[in-house]
Amino acid sequence: MSSEEALETLSSLPYRDLGFARVDVHRELRQGAPEAVLAEGKTPEQVAGIVGALLEGGAGSVLVTRADEAVREAVRNVAGDAEEDVRARAVWFARGVPEPRGLVVMVSAGTSDGPVLHEARIRAELLGTTVLVHEDAGVAGLQRLLPVLPDVERADCVVVVAGMDGALASVVGGLAAAPVIGVPTSVGYGSAAAGQTALNAMLSSCAAGLAVVGIDDGLGAGTIAARIARGRE
Amino acid sequence: MSSEEALETLSSLPYRDLGFARVDVHRELRQGAPEAVLAEGKTPEQVAGIVGALLEGGAGSVLVTRADEAVREAVRNVAGDAEEDVRARAVWFARGVPEPRGLVVMVSAGTSDGPVLHEARIRAELLGTTVLVHEDAGVAGLQRLLPVLPDVERADCVVVVAGMDGALASVVGGLAAAPVIGVPTSVGYGSAAAGQTALNAMLSSCAAGLAVVGIDDGLGAGTIAARIARGRE
Amino acid sequence: MSSEEALETLSSLPYRDLGFARVDVHRELRQGAPEAVLAEGKTPEQVAGIVGALLEGGAGSVLVTRADEAVREAVRNVAGDAEEDVRARAVWFARGVPEPRGLVVMVSAGTSDGPVLHEARIRAELLGTTVLVHEDAGVAGLQRLLPVLPDVERADCVVVVAGMDGALASVVGGLAAAPVIGVPTSVGYGSAAAGQTALNAMLSSCAAGLAVVGIDDGLGAGTIAARIARGRE
Amino acid sequence: MSSEEALETLSSLPYRDLGFARVDVHRELRQGAPEAVLAEGKTPEQVAGIVGALLEGGAGSVLVTRADEAVREAVRNVAGDAEEDVRARAVWFARGVPEPRGLVVMVSAGTSDGPVLHEARIRAELLGTTVLVHEDAGVAGLQRLLPVLPDVERADCVVVVAGMDGALASVVGGLAAAPVIGVPTSVGYGSAAAGQTALNAMLSSCAAGLAVVGIDDGLGAGTIAARIARGRE
Amino acid sequence: MSSEEALETLSSLPYRDLGFARVDVHRELRQGAPEAVLAEGKTPEQVAGIVGALLEGGAGSVLVTRADEAVREAVRNVAGDAEEDVRARAVWFARGVPEPRGLVVMVSAGTSDGPVLHEARIRAELLGTTVLVHEDAGVAGLQRLLPVLPDVERADCVVVVAGMDGALASVVGGLAAAPVIGVPTSVGYGSAAAGQTALNAMLSSCAAGLAVVGIDDGLGAGTIAARIARGRE
Amino acid sequence: MSSEEALETLSSLPYRDLGFARVDVHRELRQGAPEAVLAEGKTPEQVAGIVGALLEGGAGSVLVTRADEAVREAVRNVAGDAEEDVRARAVWFARGVPEPRGLVVMVSAGTSDGPVLHEARIRAELLGTTVLVHEDAGVAGLQRLLPVLPDVERADCVVVVAGMDGALASVVGGLAAAPVIGVPTSVGYGSAAAGQTALNAMLSSCAAGLAVVGIDDGLGAGTIAARIARGRE
Amino acid sequence: MSSEEALETLSSLPYRDLGFARVDVHRELRQGAPEAVLAEGKTPEQVAGIVGALLEGGAGSVLVTRADEAVREAVRNVAGDAEEDVRARAVWFARGVPEPRGLVVMVSAGTSDGPVLHEARIRAELLGTTVLVHEDAGVAGLQRLLPVLPDVERADCVVVVAGMDGALASVVGGLAAAPVIGVPTSVGYGSAAAGQTALNAMLSSCAAGLAVVGIDDGLGAGTIAARIARGRE
Amino acid sequence: MSSEEALETLSSLPYRDLGFARVDVHRELRQGAPEAVLAEGKTPEQVAGIVGALLEGGAGSVLVTRADEAVREAVRNVAGDAEEDVRARAVWFARGVPEPRGLVVMVSAGTSDGPVLHEARIRAELLGTTVLVHEDAGVAGLQRLLPVLPDVERADCVVVVAGMDGALASVVGGLAAAPVIGVPTSVGYGSAAAGQTALNAMLSSCAAGLAVVGIDDGLGAGTIAARIARGRE
Repeated sequence: MSSEEALETLSSLPYRDLGFARVDVHRELRQGAPEAVLAEGKTPEQVAGIVGALLEGGAGSVLVTRADEAVREAVRNVAGDAEEDVRARAVWFARGVPEPRGLVVMVSAGTSDGPVLHEARIRAELLGTTVLVHEDAGVAGLQRLLPVLPDVERADCVVVVAGMDGALASVVGGLAAAPVIGVPTSVGYGSAAAGQTALNAMLSSCAAGLAVVGIDDGLGAGTIAARIARGRE
Repeated sequence: MSSEEALETLSSLPYRDLGFARVDVHRELRQGAPEAVLAEGKTPEQVAGIVGALLEGGAGSVLVTRADEAVREAVRNVAGDAEEDVRARAVWFARGVPEPRGLVVMVSAGTSDGPVLHEARIRAELLGTTVLVHEDAGVAGLQRLLPVLPDVERADCVVVVAGMDGALASVVGGLAAAPVIGVPTSVGYGSAAAGQTALNAMLSSCAAGLAVVGIDDGLGAGTIAARIARGRE
Repeated sequence: MSSEEALETLSSLPYRDLGFARVDVHRELRQGAPEAVLAEGKTPEQVAGIVGALLEGGAGSVLVTRADEAVREAVRNVAGDAEEDVRARAVWFARGVPEPRGLVVMVSAGTSDGPVLHEARIRAELLGTTVLVHEDAGVAGLQRLLPVLPDVERADCVVVVAGMDGALASVVGGLAAAPVIGVPTSVGYGSAAAGQTALNAMLSSCAAGLAVVGIDDGLGAGTIAARIARGRE
Repeated sequence: MSSEEALETLSSLPYRDLGFARVDVHRELRQGAPEAVLAEGKTPEQVAGIVGALLEGGAGSVLVTRADEAVREAVRNVAGDAEEDVRARAVWFARGVPEPRGLVVMVSAGTSDGPVLHEARIRAELLGTTVLVHEDAGVAGLQRLLPVLPDVERADCVVVVAGMDGALASVVGGLAAAPVIGVPTSVGYGSAAAGQTALNAMLSSCAAGLAVVGIDDGLGAGTIAARIARGRE
Repeated sequence: MSSEEALETLSSLPYRDLGFARVDVHRELRQGAPEAVLAEGKTPEQVAGIVGALLEGGAGSVLVTRADEAVREAVRNVAGDAEEDVRARAVWFARGVPEPRGLVVMVSAGTSDGPVLHEARIRAELLGTTVLVHEDAGVAGLQRLLPVLPDVERADCVVVVAGMDGALASVVGGLAAAPVIGVPTSVGYGSAAAGQTALNAMLSSCAAGLAVVGIDDGLGAGTIAARIARGRE
Repeated sequence: MSSEEALETLSSLPYRDLGFARVDVHRELRQGAPEAVLAEGKTPEQVAGIVGALLEGGAGSVLVTRADEAVREAVRNVAGDAEEDVRARAVWFARGVPEPRGLVVMVSAGTSDGPVLHEARIRAELLGTTVLVHEDAGVAGLQRLLPVLPDVERADCVVVVAGMDGALASVVGGLAAAPVIGVPTSVGYGSAAAGQTALNAMLSSCAAGLAVVGIDDGLGAGTIAARIARGRE
Repeated sequence: MSSEEALETLSSLPYRDLGFARVDVHRELRQGAPEAVLAEGKTPEQVAGIVGALLEGGAGSVLVTRADEAVREAVRNVAGDAEEDVRARAVWFARGVPEPRGLVVMVSAGTSDGPVLHEARIRAELLGTTVLVHEDAGVAGLQRLLPVLPDVERADCVVVVAGMDGALASVVGGLAAAPVIGVPTSVGYGSAAAGQTALNAMLSSCAAGLAVVGIDDGLGAGTIAARIARGRE
Repeated sequence: MSSEEALETLSSLPYRDLGFARVDVHRELRQGAPEAVLAEGKTPEQVAGIVGALLEGGAGSVLVTRADEAVREAVRNVAGDAEEDVRARAVWFARGVPEPRGLVVMVSAGTSDGPVLHEARIRAELLGTTVLVHEDAGVAGLQRLLPVLPDVERADCVVVVAGMDGALASVVGGLAAAPVIGVPTSVGYGSAAAGQTALNAMLSSCAAGLAVVGIDDGLGAGTIAARIARGRE
């Protein structure tokens, strides 16, 4: 594609203006990514309006994250095929999910990392990849990590979800041959600093092949993990 | 591989003890990654000692980063086939580099991001991938970004190197279909906060499919980019 | 005006002492600015008392910001011509608004930036300028920004409201010929750091002609934007 | 200008590729801004190369900031009409400076703010505006501020340069009718926090009509001040 | 007093052990300071227990700060002569207050600083000094500060209470001949940083003769101000 | 034990997989530490599930920390021998507590440090050591510290619990011959910074023989104090 | 003095304009404070120029702080009666120092706090007060503090200079009946955070009657201590 | 010992006043700790003076840390039996070192942690304990950690020295039965934040039995480790 064609494509992409939101009804044409909507900071009505416009615009699938019960109810009322996961605070419509390709292995350090891990899992599955989950495998008890290693060995991408010291990312990052995506979580108190410590620890890890998404950003981790695992299309 | 086999493999890996360093002479067996040595915080003699042990141990290739002239000279004296790149502060031995596979496109926001970008490039090339470079394409002049788009379109992985506001990662992240790795740099002054602002901006970007390595960590970006681009082996 | 006259003017300005507040009943003589009252940290009674004193003192217009329902109700009871905007958490009296002069274009990155954007809009309109609004035009989907450009082109001042990475300010700042005022918002979580990241990103942007007001400070942005757009009087 | 025309203009803008830099030879067509080059982080050769390309491309004027003696010497050798200001660490070519329009008044809190103030002054003058300077007028001795007030009164834009507590911006911001641009400086030690305190103080000032540029960013202040003072063209 | 006598005095001071608290029943012998109890972090029962022990121990006066309604009620029930100030969140017993000596002038920047200012006032009055209060005299409207100056001129100690930019402390500090105590408050939002900005601004002020207590620490300000105003006894 | 035996032991340790948690039923075999469960971030049902599995697995004792009433109720229902301490927010089963050995002396600066101090005490007692407690012995009244000294003198380990300035740790650290463990608490406001100031003060103390655990981490302090006091077994 | 007189006085105060500095030749008329000049950030020539103008203007005494050898030499050449203290990095002219009144006791925690302590001492002595100095009396060895107590007992003002944990201020603040001024210093490394930890510790101390100046601000401490000790004049 | 005896002992301890330092010639009577002198912030002459006074006072052993070559030379000249370790930046006199008791195992993550590790080792040895050292055993290559485990198993105290992510402390802390002391180091760049990340990671680790000393504080780690290993005496 030439530079001129890039511009042309860019300017021809349609969107729908709801007044408070410009809904990008063909983002997946551009990126191969179904739509995601962050509920936080929006009213239930706004979220439902955006979701409705996306579905009407023919979106493949739509995932709403950080959705409390009021938002989830509003979204469930948009169409009959809504699915939800309370622990992950997520509600979604799974339409036109591609055939799964590639394997993502997701490992969490503790039980409290569950909401973020499952947000990542749902996102990656909607993007069309297979996800294997290991929860509560933190490094303070290395024997809990051992059964995870064979799955890490065969993964196309590994996602490590950890708060507090974030050390699990360094240990797994040192063992995996596939790309590893670290997700720091806001689990912990005091010097855990709402995820900042886990984030900084992952960023300064000397494990090779490790990159990081934002604190508690399960969505972002699921997105890039699925892209990596599916490979170039 | 079973959990028991994982342990067995782990305990059988050889390393060489130099007193001040335990040189992991077979890391590539485990991870497919040639060795990298961070020169900062080590004496030229220590670096040369580690490099020598690695080469004697049969390492595929060895890359020394953040190496000043004294370190580079000490490393050049280890063996005759040393190569170096002064701007990237790097010196290396390229032995047994695998056949290139996949395409990584690397884009920087400004001229001053060059050292980090080229460290990433050298690392990725040593890992066996093809790298295309576009420098000085920051978003404050969008027309400088346009010629980059066709290459972004066909990349297996995109690396964005940017300091200050780090906005280039958000813009490219919104356009690319491939996984994007952001590398914040310490370029800038004042509120650029030695790379912290670019880092935080990339982490809080709402562009899909973007993950981040540490500030100025060209090595880490090159490693994961090459792994992504080469895909599962 | 000489130095002596400046002093004289200063000392002759009247104010009204309410005990808990010194109400500056002639600030507009000095600055051409109608009054604004920050409700946060004051009781509804205190706010209503200040507003009443200002109106009695002949203030041109009075705008109360960050006003919850209790404050808005207390203010509505002060006089019959109160207007309010729930989303912007604002209530005001529009009296003696000057003839509009100049054009301010306000662009927000996302739906959640709405409250701050509309606080800025109301303030600027009360100061006597025309405001055009474009919401949800963030850079992660550049095509949503394209229809904004012609308006940016003809503006006397541009206001960019954005949280998270704040990248929209850099992109618009690189395209606009008029002065650009960035307003970082506390939208986002984790590394968005309650607006600090957007603030730092805007401050370290290399876009020319960009200045910034405080996090979520729609009032401040509306004030300076109107002053710029109206020009010297 | 329509959205299509905006795109067309964007894609037709020429630039020159130096390998390490993409020189935007027609930025002034787009923004009315002569070129500025930040020397920090670039070699003298790189700076001279960029400046040369700009002058050959017909740039109106070129300003190099944060330039040490080595950079200034390299730039002086590019062409015979270089001018420099050692205190401001600046070197420039003044070609095709527009007829001055509007008045910018610049006030600094202390002698040590001089380098930043003069960088702002030079930038604003090159953009075609008249600048009046008052140095060392900090609020700890209010009588030193009094003679500044008449000039503040008649300015089209006021620039306040202050480190440490940054209080001068609040005081001047409370007195000026024109837009005020605050420039925090890294002057001071301890809790001055390299300009962060002045920055935060200015951002949280309740003076109306005040916006802020980055710490020590004289260039940015000069740019927006000139644009404001010259008004819409 | 010799070093041996100092030790002897120290070891002979009585206190009363309540299990959860060691009540220092003779602190005023040692310091001339009536007792103060911080309610935050203690249950109403614990606060009432401590206050009761102090009164039984013969304490001159007892002041409870940061007391919500539940605490104030519990304290009111301890003895019949309790007094309270809801705005200042304070409840106290005024027994044996010394004859007032010296004059403290307290100035606040805005209405919202009231709770801290009045906590300081009550404390200073209980310690035996005269307090004059000026509220809402912030520097963004210098004319509101002018009527304060004659009182500042004749004070034995000046207390300045200000949040946000804290600039009032610098301006008053530059005009007063008496020692000035700055009290940063957590008033404001965004870059006001819960009082940190006002604190840092006061600490880096170049006004002579200014010292600072902790954020929102009205109690501390009242204590040292009274000691300064009363002079050596 | 040889390196091979270490590995073998590691891989043979049993745990129980609850889906959301991997319960390490034999940790005490490995470390001599009974189990502790952090309730924060887990649902009451999850906590009860983990506790039940541990007790069924034959755990010696189980301590649940940071447990609100809902959690404590769920845990009390797991088995009949639950004990709780509301102030310490703790609930536990004391089974197979070893014979006490060694003496730990715990000193707090103020009444509000109580919850953390008692969490530490319970933990240490469950691990089998004797604990002596002195509350409210802060340095601002040195005489309250004197009666603590003889106990400090004979302790095998001293624990100092303090918020705000954390100065008690420095003073006790300078007097004790035994190892001292500092526990910063989040008591205080403003510059106390939620425990960060006490933490930093303890870490930068020049008292010999002082180490620190995380903010409010009574559990951690109790654990290491008991291990030190019991000595090598 | 009336409000009008205050203004009149303010506007009649003379100063001398050096171009880069407005020298306030009669500040002592206004504040009773001889002049102080911060050398940092100024050239030796600028400092000498300011000092010369002050002496010619009839200043009582002039103190230059943070002066390296080059500055001190330039100042020594201004007039024959210069005095200097290398350890305190100070040079000064002592002219018309008032008769000493009152007693200031200054205590430092360690040898490395010497430069700040002596800057404070020189300043206070030039303002006309008697100063007693005790160095290296940190709390980690309480016996070193005991001989200081009798002097603390009879002081009109106590100054405590301490870095690292700043605990000395809390201990002395708990023992002194006079006002105490804390001076945090940048002594220490790591978590001492260049004085920030000592500063925060002092600010959150619960010792009554303690106020604080900026990090390393010996000048400020000396100023306010002398004003307190001399009392109202 | 009674409270009165404690006081008596305290007041009878001798020290020697050097003017700039109060040398505590009998600290070991009180704490069993030989003397340590931090050279940073003191002149070589001051350090030598303090060391000389200590030796003359009969100190058991004296250790000078953070000593550059100039300091080490000055100290070597004090007496003939000086020993030094250039890598650890230490110089010392080993007199009257007690018979070794107990075993401390010290593990570092990387070669660059050497200076801190060896400072800790020297200190612990001077206090009379046996130290075993394992360098460069970071978790990114778990096989390098395996040979360390048998020594960890039999230690009376374990010291873990690590910068960057500090993950080694969590892993070792999860495996050791003895108390573990973590020493964060300032090794690394960017998000390693000069040791702050390793510090926070260690503090928020959920490994039981782990406490931490300050960044780079080898001295502190050696002190407490020796006290733990030697046990109650």
